Amino acid sequence: MLKNIKLTVAYDGTNYHGFQEQRGTGLITIQEVLESTLSRLARKRIQVIGAGRTDAGVHAQGQVVNFRSENWPVPTAKIHLAMNSLLPDDVAILKAEEVESEFHARFSAKAKTYRYSIYHHPVMSPLHRLYYYHEPRKLDIDIMKKAAALLLGTHDFKCFQSQGATVKDTIRTIYRAEITYEPPILLLELKGNGFLYNMVRIITGTLCNIGLGRTTWQQMEEIIKSKNRALAGVTAPPHGLSLKEVEY
Amino acid sequence: MLKNIKLTVAYDGTNYHGFQEQRGTGLITIQEVLESTLSRLARKRIQVIGAGRTDAGVHAQGQVVNFRSENWPVPTAKIHLAMNSLLPDDVAILKAEEVESEFHARFSAKAKTYRYSIYHHPVMSPLHRLYYYHEPRKLDIDIMKKAAALLLGTHDFKCFQSQGATVKDTIRTIYRAEITYEPPILLLELKGNGFLYNMVRIITGTLCNIGLGRTTWQQMEEIIKSKNRALAGVTAPPHGLSLKEVEY
Repeated sequence: MLKNIKLTVAYDGTNYHGFQEQRGTGLITIQEVLESTLSRLARKRIQVIGAGRTDAGVHAQGQVVNFRSENWPVPTAKIHLAMNSLLPDDVAILKAEEVESEFHARFSAKAKTYRYSIYHHPVMSPLHRLYYYHEPRKLDIDIMKKAAALLLGTHDFKCFQSQGATVKDTIRTIYRAEITYEPPILLLELKGNGFLYNMVRIITGTLCNIGLGRTTWQQMEEIIKSKNRALAGVTAPPHGLSLKEVEY
Repeated sequence: MLKNIKLTVAYDGTNYHGFQEQRGTGLITIQEVLESTLSRLARKRIQVIGAGRTDAGVHAQGQVVNFRSENWPVPTAKIHLAMNSLLPDDVAILKAEEVESEFHARFSAKAKTYRYSIYHHPVMSPLHRLYYYHEPRKLDIDIMKKAAALLLGTHDFKCFQSQGATVKDTIRTIYRAEITYEPPILLLELKGNGFLYNMVRIITGTLCNIGLGRTTWQQMEEIIKSKNRALAGVTAPPHGLSLKEVEY
């Protein structure tokens, strides 16, 4: 019988070249680690489909993948134990569920939530350095919140897509754009029906520009309308980003 | 003029063999990293005195050290910047202050606060693995809080000292023993006038035994009275421990 299994996966992306398999490059990716572990358990080649192709250095608290297999040998309730005993410490299976055959981790996803974490303090904390971007300069958080609210809704977000991306349809819907600040921890959470290449990191760079007073919060609207990548901020570094949740 | 400078230091202890210098062993310690950085700035040998000799793998959010120097060349307000530009990412100077000549980081300390961090969930989070001890089994937190309250006050804590320690006077005063739990994060904070070798880690192991139901909370009193290390729990691993604050 063909089973379709959905896995919820957390990982520390520090030592990986992103999620997606990069054949022949010799670079280790999350997808390869998951596939080699599943293939060991199944004693045959298993391929996974990931909900989000996180970049090199990006983390996940709730990435979702699925795989299909005939005669899959491990009971669903035991899959996380079997896999976690084989996986390296920086990748963990949080949950395994059997799903209907049509379920596709990427195409069935209704919404994704990304979190960008900033350590907002003059001196970086060594205990946060792997998972937080360090912003030592003074940010006006209230102004950043006003700008973030302008991201809500359905827009053409071409201005927040890295050059060279091949996606044609750059219209996306943002359901939630929330900034919370408990000094020195500044968190930006974005929930949307999809995200363009580097979109969260470029939005973070743009919001930081606004927080620093280089751009006004009202200009967020003009930047979006311009569809011009050059008007948005720099791409914030990958280690502050985490794929928090995928909803179906 | 002789200056006496107090530094507040944070570090990720993962890659260090503890705080204290270990001459001739080739092992890198926090003390050596601080001294070599200060010596570069002073262009002569500087030695530091640390408030707490944290073990290999133990972290700090608020370790305190002091050093004395004639003709020290860096203005006090700039010391943290000068040092942080030279230090590795996993060690940071949070604050530098000039103090009176009698100030001694270890002997002048009135109280120290240690935090032990536990990730209490069936599956370990890869994003917490470096700074949290993983306890996948069910702990009864309320019972642990009752047991922790029995640590308060002045007691002979010999039962919580690792074998082989040379300290004769094992009487210490615990001012605060607080357990907070926001699932899955369980934090134990202990503030005392001093701590024996491995004391916080052995207390953590003992409290986990109580939380697991292997020992009753009332037995905490008997364990302390017994002065018998064998009745206390195992020494919890170093990576969950952090020196949070030293008060003077």
